[in-house]
Amino acid sequence: MTTPNAIQSQPGATAAEERLVALGITLPAAPKPVAAYVPSVRTGKLVYVSGQIPMSEGKLLDQGRVGNEVSPEDGVACARQCAINGLAVVRDALGSLDRVARVVRLGVFVACDPGFHEQPRVANGASQLMLDVFGEAGRHARAAVGASDLPLGAPVEIEFLFEAKD
Amino acid sequence: MTTPNAIQSQPGATAAEERLVALGITLPAAPKPVAAYVPSVRTGKLVYVSGQIPMSEGKLLDQGRVGNEVSPEDGVACARQCAINGLAVVRDALGSLDRVARVVRLGVFVACDPGFHEQPRVANGASQLMLDVFGEAGRHARAAVGASDLPLGAPVEIEFLFEAKD
Amino acid sequence: MTTPNAIQSQPGATAAEERLVALGITLPAAPKPVAAYVPSVRTGKLVYVSGQIPMSEGKLLDQGRVGNEVSPEDGVACARQCAINGLAVVRDALGSLDRVARVVRLGVFVACDPGFHEQPRVANGASQLMLDVFGEAGRHARAAVGASDLPLGAPVEIEFLFEAKD
Repeated sequence: MTTPNAIQSQPGATAAEERLVALGITLPAAPKPVAAYVPSVRTGKLVYVSGQIPMSEGKLLDQGRVGNEVSPEDGVACARQCAINGLAVVRDALGSLDRVARVVRLGVFVACDPGFHEQPRVANGASQLMLDVFGEAGRHARAAVGASDLPLGAPVEIEFLFEAKD
Repeated sequence: MTTPNAIQSQPGATAAEERLVALGITLPAAPKPVAAYVPSVRTGKLVYVSGQIPMSEGKLLDQGRVGNEVSPEDGVACARQCAINGLAVVRDALGSLDRVARVVRLGVFVACDPGFHEQPRVANGASQLMLDVFGEAGRHARAAVGASDLPLGAPVEIEFLFEAKD
Repeated sequence: MTTPNAIQSQPGATAAEERLVALGITLPAAPKPVAAYVPSVRTGKLVYVSGQIPMSEGKLLDQGRVGNEVSPEDGVACARQCAINGLAVVRDALGSLDRVARVVRLGVFVACDPGFHEQPRVANGASQLMLDVFGEAGRHARAAVGASDLPLGAPVEIEFLFEAKD
């Protein structure tokens, strides 16, 4: 069926690993499982990546609520770091980012107080990276909402759903 | 396997477009992509619809937290508007609501302060519309939770997962 | 494709119903549908279970926000009860827990005020039960976040995604 307004998988349309190099991004080691959950689970072609917080070299980029202790600009940087960590996890699961057929969904949680309405702006820090790395295959569905608090006091947490190539 | 208590897809059981007309609902134009995300993504038979807020003719039906600036009744109306917008998106993706095999899941976020416990009542504004439009195929799994704040100060945000017919 | 770091389905690896007996857990009757949503929906091999709150014999184990009215320890117990209820739903859908191929994802919402960062500790109450009941097939992806409030004043709400065996 032709669905001009629904973006379908475009296998082969990306060279994500090359783009990552061009962007000057070195992915960290994927986080190791803690407790009774794991960084990712694959079922069929779908790869579910657990909620990522903006850890970089063992510590959070920032701590607190966006709009209070953390500026919106720093919130954007945190969302981008969550996305870098999510890419590290899916690469670990699939062996290469070039095995990703497309990014399906991002679930973005922004720690904030009532009155802070810029969850979409913050989430764009992750969404833009998906586009930069995967091109058209990086365009995804998204929900961005405010959370009263997040693990370790992280300003942002993001979970990811990817579709793998055959 | 027969699973009497799990509702399976019932292709052909609905004439959703006809029901929509009978309900007197005219769907708006589907929202256009903003930034690096898109209104919906299809993977296999699953169509993920991005989080919808209660925009109607270019502005929010209400702004604020349900139980504070927004009454629960108005929250229900906001949830229904989110659902109307979600239907507009999935119709745009599939060409017709009659191409929906079933509604799978709604993720409902209600902006509220601590002490407001009526997220399910608010969410029913969307759930009921799914039932009205799709009949049995509209019965879905759901999570309804409180958010500290939502984009643009929306009282409700809802994301949708649909199963498409072959 | 061999994916050593992505856990794949391991059909037959568990005898979940036996483990449940060994754990001394008797599952309650699955909750009946209320309003226009249902306890679970199956699409293909995926079973989506609606958000569960810690109801036990008709009432909540606790009420309030974790870190305030509810201690973290009691929050863990609430998460475990949500998981018991989720198991009751998926058993009702599939006929037996032994029909579960694996646990795919948990979405964990913890009612809390700003400043409470222990969502992962609370969520482990559910994650650990999945591991205890399903063994390796119980290891799942997870997002754990803070919510401003939850239905009925529940301290925890958890939704589940399972993969069914063929």
